[in-house]
Parts: sequence; structure tokens; C-alpha cells
Amino acid sequence: MTKPVYILNGPNLNMLGSRETEIYGSQTLEDISSLCTAKAQALGLSIDFRQTNDEGELVNQVQEARENASAIILNAAAYTHTSVALHDALAMADVPIIEVHLSNVYKREEFRHKSFVSPVAQGVICGFGAQGYELALDAARKLI
Amino acid sequence: MTKPVYILNGPNLNMLGSRETEIYGSQTLEDISSLCTAKAQALGLSIDFRQTNDEGELVNQVQEARENASAIILNAAAYTHTSVALHDALAMADVPIIEVHLSNVYKREEFRHKSFVSPVAQGVICGFGAQGYELALDAARKLI
Amino acid sequence: MTKPVYILNGPNLNMLGSRETEIYGSQTLEDISSLCTAKAQALGLSIDFRQTNDEGELVNQVQEARENASAIILNAAAYTHTSVALHDALAMADVPIIEVHLSNVYKREEFRHKSFVSPVAQGVICGFGAQGYELALDAARKLI
Amino acid sequence: MTKPVYILNGPNLNMLGSRETEIYGSQTLEDISSLCTAKAQALGLSIDFRQTNDEGELVNQVQEARENASAIILNAAAYTHTSVALHDALAMADVPIIEVHLSNVYKREEFRHKSFVSPVAQGVICGFGAQGYELALDAARKLI
Amino acid sequence: MTKPVYILNGPNLNMLGSRETEIYGSQTLEDISSLCTAKAQALGLSIDFRQTNDEGELVNQVQEARENASAIILNAAAYTHTSVALHDALAMADVPIIEVHLSNVYKREEFRHKSFVSPVAQGVICGFGAQGYELALDAARKLI
Amino acid sequence: MTKPVYILNGPNLNMLGSRETEIYGSQTLEDISSLCTAKAQALGLSIDFRQTNDEGELVNQVQEARENASAIILNAAAYTHTSVALHDALAMADVPIIEVHLSNVYKREEFRHKSFVSPVAQGVICGFGAQGYELALDAARKLI
Amino acid sequence: MTKPVYILNGPNLNMLGSRETEIYGSQTLEDISSLCTAKAQALGLSIDFRQTNDEGELVNQVQEARENASAIILNAAAYTHTSVALHDALAMADVPIIEVHLSNVYKREEFRHKSFVSPVAQGVICGFGAQGYELALDAARKLI
Amino acid sequence: MTKPVYILNGPNLNMLGSRETEIYGSQTLEDISSLCTAKAQALGLSIDFRQTNDEGELVNQVQEARENASAIILNAAAYTHTSVALHDALAMADVPIIEVHLSNVYKREEFRHKSFVSPVAQGVICGFGAQGYELALDAARKLI
Amino acid sequence: MTKPVYILNGPNLNMLGSRETEIYGSQTLEDISSLCTAKAQALGLSIDFRQTNDEGELVNQVQEARENASAIILNAAAYTHTSVALHDALAMADVPIIEVHLSNVYKREEFRHKSFVSPVAQGVICGFGAQGYELALDAARKLI
Amino acid sequence: MTKPVYILNGPNLNMLGSRETEIYGSQTLEDISSLCTAKAQALGLSIDFRQTNDEGELVNQVQEARENASAIILNAAAYTHTSVALHDALAMADVPIIEVHLSNVYKREEFRHKSFVSPVAQGVICGFGAQGYELALDAARKLI
Amino acid sequence: MTKPVYILNGPNLNMLGSRETEIYGSQTLEDISSLCTAKAQALGLSIDFRQTNDEGELVNQVQEARENASAIILNAAAYTHTSVALHDALAMADVPIIEVHLSNVYKREEFRHKSFVSPVAQGVICGFGAQGYELALDAARKLI
Amino acid sequence: MTKPVYILNGPNLNMLGSRETEIYGSQTLEDISSLCTAKAQALGLSIDFRQTNDEGELVNQVQEARENASAIILNAAAYTHTSVALHDALAMADVPIIEVHLSNVYKREEFRHKSFVSPVAQGVICGFGAQGYELALDAARKLI
Repeated sequence: MTKPVYILNGPNLNMLGSRETEIYGSQTLEDISSLCTAKAQALGLSIDFRQTNDEGELVNQVQEARENASAIILNAAAYTHTSVALHDALAMADVPIIEVHLSNVYKREEFRHKSFVSPVAQGVICGFGAQGYELALDAARKLI
Repeated sequence: MTKPVYILNGPNLNMLGSRETEIYGSQTLEDISSLCTAKAQALGLSIDFRQTNDEGELVNQVQEARENASAIILNAAAYTHTSVALHDALAMADVPIIEVHLSNVYKREEFRHKSFVSPVAQGVICGFGAQGYELALDAARKLI
Repeated sequence: MTKPVYILNGPNLNMLGSRETEIYGSQTLEDISSLCTAKAQALGLSIDFRQTNDEGELVNQVQEARENASAIILNAAAYTHTSVALHDALAMADVPIIEVHLSNVYKREEFRHKSFVSPVAQGVICGFGAQGYELALDAARKLI
Repeated sequence: MTKPVYILNGPNLNMLGSRETEIYGSQTLEDISSLCTAKAQALGLSIDFRQTNDEGELVNQVQEARENASAIILNAAAYTHTSVALHDALAMADVPIIEVHLSNVYKREEFRHKSFVSPVAQGVICGFGAQGYELALDAARKLI
Repeated sequence: MTKPVYILNGPNLNMLGSRETEIYGSQTLEDISSLCTAKAQALGLSIDFRQTNDEGELVNQVQEARENASAIILNAAAYTHTSVALHDALAMADVPIIEVHLSNVYKREEFRHKSFVSPVAQGVICGFGAQGYELALDAARKLI
Repeated sequence: MTKPVYILNGPNLNMLGSRETEIYGSQTLEDISSLCTAKAQALGLSIDFRQTNDEGELVNQVQEARENASAIILNAAAYTHTSVALHDALAMADVPIIEVHLSNVYKREEFRHKSFVSPVAQGVICGFGAQGYELALDAARKLI
Repeated sequence: MTKPVYILNGPNLNMLGSRETEIYGSQTLEDISSLCTAKAQALGLSIDFRQTNDEGELVNQVQEARENASAIILNAAAYTHTSVALHDALAMADVPIIEVHLSNVYKREEFRHKSFVSPVAQGVICGFGAQGYELALDAARKLI
Repeated sequence: MTKPVYILNGPNLNMLGSRETEIYGSQTLEDISSLCTAKAQALGLSIDFRQTNDEGELVNQVQEARENASAIILNAAAYTHTSVALHDALAMADVPIIEVHLSNVYKREEFRHKSFVSPVAQGVICGFGAQGYELALDAARKLI
Repeated sequence: MTKPVYILNGPNLNMLGSRETEIYGSQTLEDISSLCTAKAQALGLSIDFRQTNDEGELVNQVQEARENASAIILNAAAYTHTSVALHDALAMADVPIIEVHLSNVYKREEFRHKSFVSPVAQGVICGFGAQGYELALDAARKLI
Repeated sequence: MTKPVYILNGPNLNMLGSRETEIYGSQTLEDISSLCTAKAQALGLSIDFRQTNDEGELVNQVQEARENASAIILNAAAYTHTSVALHDALAMADVPIIEVHLSNVYKREEFRHKSFVSPVAQGVICGFGAQGYELALDAARKLI
Repeated sequence: MTKPVYILNGPNLNMLGSRETEIYGSQTLEDISSLCTAKAQALGLSIDFRQTNDEGELVNQVQEARENASAIILNAAAYTHTSVALHDALAMADVPIIEVHLSNVYKREEFRHKSFVSPVAQGVICGFGAQGYELALDAARKLI
Repeated sequence: MTKPVYILNGPNLNMLGSRETEIYGSQTLEDISSLCTAKAQALGLSIDFRQTNDEGELVNQVQEARENASAIILNAAAYTHTSVALHDALAMADVPIIEVHLSNVYKREEFRHKSFVSPVAQGVICGFGAQGYELALDAARKLI
């Protein structure tokens, strides 16, 4: 049996759906998780969907993915812009990596235009809300 | 009948498939056009697929899209990074705009990290080669 | 008979009056053209009023103005901020040059604060909407 | 009876006409004042024309204008480029504000390209010498 | 008898309460003065409350404070960001200095993030409106 | 009964009072906690006083505050200058936020002048040592 | 028979010889064309000499050169400094590329010091007026 | 008995020896630990060798070292370049601190040239692979 | 009889001798005035020695010098680094201008390394305390 | 008899042909010297060909050239990018100066894009290997 | 017999031990030389220890090392931060290169944080005073 | 007998009087040497006047001055702006150091505004031509 796609979510994404919905949409992270499960099933994939507010934990998950996952879909949220540790963990992973953002980060503050994830990802999808995760699964499917 | 999705391609994309295939892949622009036609059909959409090396012509096409298209999928290539004229044309268009790049521009030269398209686009998809156009059509479908 | 004043308009100005009217006002380019014709007549001047989305074409028009125009009133729109080619064409022209902008560009994005036109123009008028063209004709009158 | 247009002049403009005439022209500030009086009369306006070398005094005059003037025409000279105090006073004024410069500041030193006045002005007129004041009165007329 | 606390207010603060109340609140400078008098009395302190639009005058007041005041509470407004002269005067003063701003300057324009006062002040209080002055008096009480 | 004020302390503040006392003062974090308890009681408030060296934990606490606290007083220490995750958590919180620093950070290294907390806080108090927490409680009282 | 050397000239070079002769010399573009024809003949080469003011057209010519030319000698004039599209077209061409400028661009404005052509050219020759084209033909001869 | 030397290792160093061996060498972290134990014994020292992916945990370990260690040898990996919290913890520690990197960070990406550890370390050793730890123990021996 | 040399002193120089004597020396401004009078007499010159804290007043004095002085010796103190108004006044003056600073400003804060006076002065003397004024008089003597 | 052309070579050029031949080609400096002698003879010129690793010596040679040479062909190698002394010596020389580089410096490290030689040279030739010297002699011939 | 290790010392290191001993320690260069001789002997190596104040001479020594040395230990002192010539010479050398500094340069002025040696060295050792040379010999031993 | 004042002159100053006299004046270095001898005699001082084009030699002279000179008057010319080696030598010297420039360097190119000499000099004198050396001797007299 094939390994699952890791769908890793960074800080504050557990708060989705309740606040700043004009930026992030009104779906909760559970909604997105369900969406992903359905989409994965349709594509013949399985997923492992997680969230953490902790940079070190996110690094642990990426390291673990190297053995146990067929691909990583990563919405690193704020750590996208500050975490060299995440960058290094991703550079060492041997699976396809897809960067996702709910909002179009290029329409927001200057400090969100810099990504430590992009240079070590296969590709980037941003600005399509929860649908971005589905598109990422489509892309992952092809890359696996 | 609904308006077509405009799929607009900028400078040098007519050369695809013959050179620098390690960056852009080996598919020609015709291959991509066929792929898009098929995908659009599957989604119940029609497309209008064009390419030009000319900045002014690209502006014309975007202006025209405002009346005649249901959405714009735009791979502006080099003009992404230099054209304020394109930025202004897009800002005036009233249809969903999706920015696509074949390669992951964030892995390339510094001057390709700046996009005048992103701040006026709904979202961005890059690094997935020709599949990026298919993902964009998926996204467009939802936005129309 | 004296040569006409060239009133040259850059990219997207053909879209005036329909979109982003809070920035550019609700007058169309035709309205502005009429306004200019009337004003010119009152001043005893004739005008040649044009618009193009194409940088190369704008360069051609400036080159042509050198022989055929008594002055240039130029609203280069987006090319103001990116076109060294336009800068060089203007530097070679032998007639008075007046830079006009409908909106006050200094209230807008940082990238609109840089002008390649200003260092080769006689003067600049911005922020007064369509009236800016009339003021420019007044100024041109005096400079011719 | 309508309130006068305040025409406020900043530091060193009292020296006009005697020095650096290749930059500022040969007219004295008195000449400009006369020109403005005539022009205002023609437009059915009255003016209050002042000059000061003092930043604090210029702030006072702008504050006073809020109650007593129908519009402000401001040539802040050197304070244009350094005075946040002036910026704040203008931001609080409730009348149309027109920024004027005798010379085309964009042809001069880099430090003259930054204006603290522009972002809080309606529009900018520069490079037309004394005529710039007349054009500003025309513009003010329309804005009042 | 102890010396008074100097409460010095910079340019445009005399306009408080009438304009841009969403930034600065609706209290007038007189209201703030009354608030300070009451608070000072409660703390067993006396105050000397002043305002000026003039940088030189503000420097004079700081110099005078060195002899005559027990502490300085300073809201230098716009001069905060531009006045090296004020910086130098404060560096020479021998009394505790507390910097106050009504608004949270770090939420505003970039040019308001730089303070020439902070490096020579004991501490900074900003964003609490008129209450900031009361907090500053509390702090001053402890420092005297 | 009203919710407590969360007083959250970031990395290394557990070391207070033993080292670098010329910068941070000689009071321990326990001393400050006692001071806050007393002050809160005087104001009719209750507090929840915590410290952590962990960025993710600090994010958790801010998220928790949204439900359980009436206000947040935050001394994020080093994370002030680097944590976008903290910034985002604070932006999502619905309670008044007050940023506190023991030392005047503007007198210290350049990298301490940038705060990711300030743009999402109500106000800032720095440079008053342990008293800063008391002033923050005063301010919180008014904001609740 | 060998393919010709493409000698491509960018914007405003059609104006040579009439204006700013202190920078560009007094020879017209026709003079330079004749010079090149003679020199090429002497070297046993043929040439195809063109000029355009249009960025898109220049891109077209470079693309065409890939099939039809043995080498490209390119004086891109103003587009040298702004055209990423030209850069990309050149990067895809499979023939030797020689960058030429009439004037020594390093003695001129800062914005002329940046070249998008240089990183994809074999070499650069600048500052020798029309002779620069002859030197470029010599160099091309050796590279073919 | 003397306190041990703390040898602290930051994020991703647990992955050593399996990936990117051209940068980091083929030894695992266990190999390096053994090497250090042997070297320490030869020098009459004991060591405490640890690794963590967590910034907060690394701060905890540094704080603990202050009481329990005779020196700190620190390879902070990615946190070297981003962690002000680590900087502050080190600044408070009272033991010699030696910064080690396996690779020569100055040959790598620009963002690895900035270290928050260096200004609070006794010295730096980088580019010698696992031997760097042995050299650091030699240096520590002398500093204790 | 020849016109006097104007010796103009900017903000805070009236405080000399009492504070920060390690930077500025222990002589008062009166001491320096006496020194200058003596030196001038020895050189057969007369002087007019003034001090003001006000930027506008300093501009007035420079304007007045143009008619009434044979040379200007200017210690603009803090206004050196911020005053474009002073720069413009000096640029219009027709007499030799000598910039003096008591301390070596290049050993001090970065913001003191920029001078708006230097580009319009004949020469600069700094770092020699009160003797700098005497050297300036020597230099003035030669330039008159 | 006419004076020789000085062909001056800077640091490390004596190592040519043995190392980094992918950048500099496989010809030794002696080979280049022979090439130049032959070419010069063909043009009716004589040459004086030298190399030094010493900045001061290079300055001496340029000074000497002013009296004794008809032109300078200068490959300053590393000193191109750092030597203001060389810049000043060249600015004082009265003979045509031609800057040559074997490699295309604009394809290399950022610090090689800045030249202190270019602003004081007639023209620049780079990227053509040893042939660049021959082209320079052609150019020199015309300039003498 | 094996070739010696070149230990090359740059400008002002001949002054060691007499001045600024708080930065560089109290040992003279002769002391360090003796230390190195002893250490080398213990490692079965021979050394060639030199010092020069001259950039060109240092380049010569590095060039010579390529033939005659088994490794280079280089303390380039001030030339570390400014010499591209040294960089180029080292890039051409075929022996291991170890960069040494007595002081921790990252605790000192900003301009000492940039090294032209580091990108072409195997590794860097700094901050350990004279012991740094011994550590470098240990490292060299392993690399030879 | 007292030690002489070293008057050290850097690169290209041996060319004085023959070229670029509008910048440096028409006096030769010999003229300046004579002037200095006369002035020194008048002050009861002796001098040792030297010039070199070599950075290393200039460092040697400064090192020598430490033992043999009573003060250093240094016109380092181009090395002023680039030589950290000179900076370090001066920082180690124990005698008063006076920086002199013939021209007002602040009126010239940007790269001449940075001085590595100023932060280690007592004071700076520039813009007074040869007289600057006399003023420097006056100042030296007082400092010895």
C-alpha cells in the first residue's frame, strides 16, 4: 500500500473560520480536512492531516515525512516567512513538496512576500482558499 | 452560452519545448493548448488560447478580456516582472485572474521574485509545468 | 501655420471613465479629447490627440513629434515608471515637454513615485484629473 | 464674501530673482505676488500671499488657513523635503491644497525627489516658474 | 518646594479634538491639560503644560527644563521623527525624560517609526490616548 | 465574575534578577508577579501570570486568551522581534493587547527596534522596568 | 552558404547622427550599416542589419535569429536596462551573442549600469562609437 | 569533580549522515557524539551531548548550562541565523561559548552569513566537519 | 572698512561648557566668542558672533550675511544633518563659507555623518574643539 | 617615432593558463603578450607589456604612461573592483584608456559588476578572452 | 619530504603585543611563530611563517604557496575585508586554506563582518587568540 | 629635541599641479612641502614629508611614526576611502592624527564621502587646498 500524503499546517491555522474571515475564508480547519479526505479518496490517495503552532514540531513532522509519506503539502503559515529550520528540514526530505497558502500572500504585508519554503518546494499554490488544498492534491498525485 | 476563459501567454513561450527544457519542460505551447482544450471540455468550459511577445498586445488582450472572457489565466512570462502597464490593465479587468508559471520562479534569479501580476490576481500557481494550466482551469471553474 | 501640440496618452487610458473612477475620474478619454480641442481653440492652438498601449508606438510618436509638433503633452501612464526607451526618445526631442497625470501619483504605490519622464520634461502637472490637460495646454502656450 | 486663497511660500523664496536665476528664474517674489493678484482678480478670487523662513510659522499659517482660507497654494521650498510637522498640519486642514514648485525638482538632487507635501495635497504643479502659481490658481478655482 | 514636571507638546497638538479624531481621540489639548493637572495633584506634583509648533522653541523649553523642572514629559509629535536638535537638547538635560504619543505610532506610516527622542528618553508610552499622559505622570513620580 | 488579565512573558524572562541587571533591573520575575497581583487587586482585576521560552507555547497562550482573558499584557522579549506567528495570533485575538518591555529597546541593538507585536497592540510601554507592568494594568483597566 | 550575422538595433537608434551627438557621435544608423557591410565583406561574412523601437519586435528578431543567423550583434539601447523578455529570448538562442553600445554606458546615469543582456552575452564592447560594431564583427568571426 | 561541557545541537542535525552529505559529510550525529566522548576523555573533560529541533528547548538547555556546565559548544544550525531568543540566553550565560558549524556557512546562501550566536560567543569554528567539534573541545579546555 | 566675518552657531551651542564636556570640551560659547575676537583682531578682521536654536532664524542670518558679511563661519550643530533650508540659503550666499564642528562628527552616530552644509561650503574643519574656530578664521582670512 | 601602447595587467594574471581555465581560457600571459606583439606590428604600433600583483605599482605604471605611452590598455583584474587609487591615476592620465577583461565579468559574482576603471576609460571590451586584447589594439589604433 | 605549511600574516600583525591588547592579546607575532613551530613539530609538520603589510606581496606569497606549500593558514587581517586580489589568488591555489583571526571579528565593526577569504577557504577559526593558529595546524594536518 | 611631525601623502599626490588643477589647485607637492617647512619652522616644529603610491608602504610609515613622530598629518588620498589596513595602523598609533584633504571631498563622488581615516583621527580639515596643511600644523602644535 502507498504511503499517505502528509498535509501539514502551521501556526494559527487551528483558528480558521472564526476570525479574519475576509482574509482566510469561513471554513474551519476541520472543513478543510474533510475536503482533503474526500478529494484524496477520489484520487486514490490517503492523507495524514495535522496542525501545530510549534516550529520544532513542524520540523519533526517534515523529518518524519521523509520515511513515511509519499508527498508533503505544506501550509506553513507564519513560519513560511521566518523559519530557516523548516527550510533545512524540507531540503533534506526526499519527497515532492507543495507549498499552499489560503490567501494571496502577495497582496498582503511586505514581510509575507519572502518564503523560506518556496526555494525547496516543487511548486506553490496560493490565493484559492480551501480549494488550494484540492489543487495541491491533484498536483501531488501527478508527482508521486 | 458562457464566455470563454482567456488563456494568455507572454513573451518567448512560443519557444517552449525546444530549449531550456530542464527549466520549462519538453512540452510545446501547442501541447499545452491541447491539454487546456481537453481539460476545459471536461469542465464544461471553452477557452481562447493566445501567445504574444508584445507587451502592448498583451495589454490589449487583457482589456478585451474584460468584455469577452469569463476569466483570465495569465502566464505573462518576463512581463510579469517588469510591466506596470499589464498591472494596470489587470486592475481594471472585472473577471477572475489566475497567474500561472511553468517553473517555480522562486528558485530562479532574484529579479523573477517580483511580480506585478500577483497583487492584482486572485491567486498564483507555479512550478507544476503544463499541469499548472489544468489546475488553473479547475480554479477558474470555481471562481466563475 | 503653427504645428499642432501632440497630446500623447499611454497604456490603459483608453479605458478611462468605466473603471476605477475613484482614482481616475468618470470622464472618458473622448471627453478629455473634446475638452482639449476646446481649450486649444481658445488658446489659438491646434492639437493631435492619440492613445496607444504600446511602448514602441509611443516612442515612434515622440520621435515623430520632433519634426511635426510644437510641443508634447504626455500622459505616459504605466510607461512613466518603467520606460527608459521613452526617456531616451524624449531626451532627443527638441520641443517643450509637459508631463501630465490624472491622479496624484505620489499618493499611490511606491513604484509610481519614480518617473523616467520627469527628468526630461519641462514640468509636471498631476492630481487635477482632466483639468490637468487644460493646465498643460496653458503652460504649453507659454513655452511655444 | 468668499474666503481668500492662501498662497504660502517657504524658506529662501524671499531671495528670488537675485540668485541662482538659472534655476528659479529672474522674477522676484513681489513679481509673483503681483502676478497672482492679477490672476486671482480675473478668476474672481482674492488671495493672501505670505513668505516665511520658519517651519513653525509655516505650520501656524496652515493651521490658520483651515478657518480662514478657501484653498491653500503651497510652495514649501526646502521644508517640502524634511517637514513632517507641515505634513501633519496639512493633513488636518479641510481645504483643497495645491503644491507648487518653480523648478522641476525631479531634475535636481535626489533629496528633492521626496515630498512630505505631495501625499496630502490634491495635486502638484512644478517646473513652470512663476506661471505655476497662475496654473495653481486656475486649479484652485475649480476645486473651491 | 519641588520643581514642576514640564509637559511639553509639539506641532499640531493644539488642533487636537477637532480633526482626525479616529487617530488622536476627541479630547482637546485643554482637556488633556486639565487631566494632567488633576493627576499631578493626586500624586503631589505640580506641572507646567505647554505647546508650540516651533522646533527652536521646543529646544528652548527643553534647555530651560534642565534648570527648572523635575522631569520632562514630551510629546514631540512630528519633531519626534526629524529633529536632531531636540535629540541634542534632551541629551544635555539632567532630568528624567518620558516620551509620550497619543496614537500607536508603530501602526502608522513608516516615517513615524523612527524616533530621535527614544534613544535619549528613559522610557516610551504610546497608543493610550490622553491616558498616556497620566501613565507618564505615574512613571515620572517614581523617577523623580 | 470577569475574566483575568493574561500577563504573558517570553523567553529568558525567567532569568530576571540574576544577570544583566544593568539592563533589566534586579527584580526577579516572581517579584514582578507579586507586584502585578497587588496592583491588579487594587484595580479590582485578577491576573494570570505566565512565562515560557517557547514560541509555539506563547502562540497557544495568546489563542487561549481570546476565550478566557479580558486583556493581554505581553512582554514577548526576543520573540517581539522575530515572531510572525505571534503577530498572527495577536491579530486574531479579540481583547485589548498591551506590549511591555522592561528596558528601553530603542537604546539597544538595531534588531530590537523592529517589533512584530506593536502593529497589533493597542499601545506600548517600555523602559520603566517592573513599573511598566503596573502602568500596563492601569491602561488595561481603562480598555476593558 | 553560411547564415548572416544579425545586427539588431533597439529604440531610438534610428535617430542617430542628428541629436545628442556629443554622446552618440555624428554618424547616422545608415552610416553604421554601410560600415558593417564593408567590414563583413572583408571578413567573408554577410549581415542582416535592422532597427526597431519595439520591445516585442526585438524579441521576435532574436527568436528568428536562432534559426537563421550565425551570430547576433545586439545594441539593445534602452531595452538593455529594462527588458527581461529580451534576456529570456537571448538565453534561448543558440548562437554567439555580442552586446554593443556606442557610448560608454558606465559614464552615464546609474540606471544604465544594469544590463539584462550582459549575463546572456558572450562579451560586451562599449564606448567606441561606430567602430564598436566593427570590433564586434571581428569577434563574431572568431566565435562562429 | 568538574562540570561537563555541554555540546548542544540544533534543528535537523539528527538527520546527519543520510542526506546532503556533500555539504555536511557522511558521519551521523552518533558518530560525532562518540568522537567527542573520546576527545573529551583524552583532554580530561566530560561532556553532555544533546540535540533538539525546538528553539525553546535549546533556550532551556542554554539556561541550564549556566548552572551545570563548564562550557557550551553550540551548533545551533538554522537557529543561528534567526533566533534572538538564543542570543539573549547566551548573553546571560556565564560560561565560555564556542560556536561550531560543520560546513563553511560563508560559502552558502546569504541568509546563513548572519549569526545571532557569534556576537555572544568566545569564538567560531566552521567548515571542518566533525573535526570542528574536536577543535572546539581543545579550545574549551583552554578557556575553562 | 571691511565687512565683519559672521560666526553663526546653531542649536544647543549656548549650553557648551556645562554638559557632555567629554564630547564638546569645557569652554563656554562666551569663551569661544572671546577667543574669536582676539584671533580676528590679530588677523585684522572683525566678527559678528551669534547663536540661535531656531532653524528659520539661522536661515535669516545666512541671508543677511550675503549683504553684510565678508565670510561665514558656520557651526550649524544639529541642523547640519537635517536642514535643506539652510543648504539652500547657503547655496544663495555669495561669500566664502567655512563649516566648523567642535567634535569629530565622524566618530559619532551615523546620522551625524551626513551634512547638508558641506556640499555648499568651501571647506570643513572638525574635531579640534574651540581651536577649530581660530583655524576657520585663518582660512577665512585667506579666502576673503 | 611614436610612443608605445602600454598594456598593463593586474594581479594574478601571471597565473593564466594553469588554473580556472574554464573562466580565463588556456592561454598563458606570455601567449597573450606574443599575440599582442604580432597584432601591434600589423597595425604599425609598438607595445610595452607588463604585469604586477601590486596596486601601488600599477598606479606607478599608469602615472608613467602619461609621459611615455600613446595609449593604455588595462586589464586591472581584481583591482578593477576595489581601487580608487587606480581610478584617480587614470583620471589624471592624458592618453586614451581601454579597459579589457578576459571573462565576461557580468556573468560572475556581484562584486565584479562594479568597476572603478570604466568611468575613466574610453571604452570597455570584455568576454572575448585573449582576442579582447587584439580588439583593444584595433580600438587604440583609431583613438591615437 | 613534505612541503611546509605556509602561515601567512597580513597588515599590522607585526605590531601585536604592544597595542590594543584587549582586542588582540599580549603575545607578539614572534610568540605566535614559536607556538606554531612547536605545535607543527608535534604534528610532524614544518612551517614557513611570514608577515607583510603589502597586499601585492601577500598575493605573491599565496601564488608561491601553490607550488611550495602543503596548506595555507591565512590571517589576512585588514585585507580580509577589502582584497578581491587575495580572493582571486586563493581561488587559484590548489592547497587547503584555513582562515584564522585572533579576535572574534563578528563582535567588532560591521565592515569586519564581510570576508573575501571565507568563500575560498576550507574553514574559518576566529576568536581564540594565538591558540587559533594551533587549532588551524590541527585542522591542516587532517586536510593534507 | 622633539620628534618631527610626519606629513604623509598617499597615491597620485606626486602628480599635483599638472592635472585636474580645478580640483586640486596648481601647486605641486614640492610647493606644499616648502610651505610646510616654513610653517613648521615658524611654529618651532620639524617635519618629515613623504609621498607614496603604495598602500603597504603607507601602513609602514604610520607604524614607524608611532616611535619616531610627535604627530601625523595624513592626506591618504584614494586610500582614505578603501583602506582598512590604514585604519588599523592608525588605530594602533599613539600620536595625534590629523586628516587633510586638498579638495572638499563632500562635493565630489559619493564614494569619497566614506573615510576609514576619520574615525581614528583627532580631526579633519578639507577643502582649503595647500593652506589645509598649514592649518593642520597649527592644530598639531596644540595637540603635541
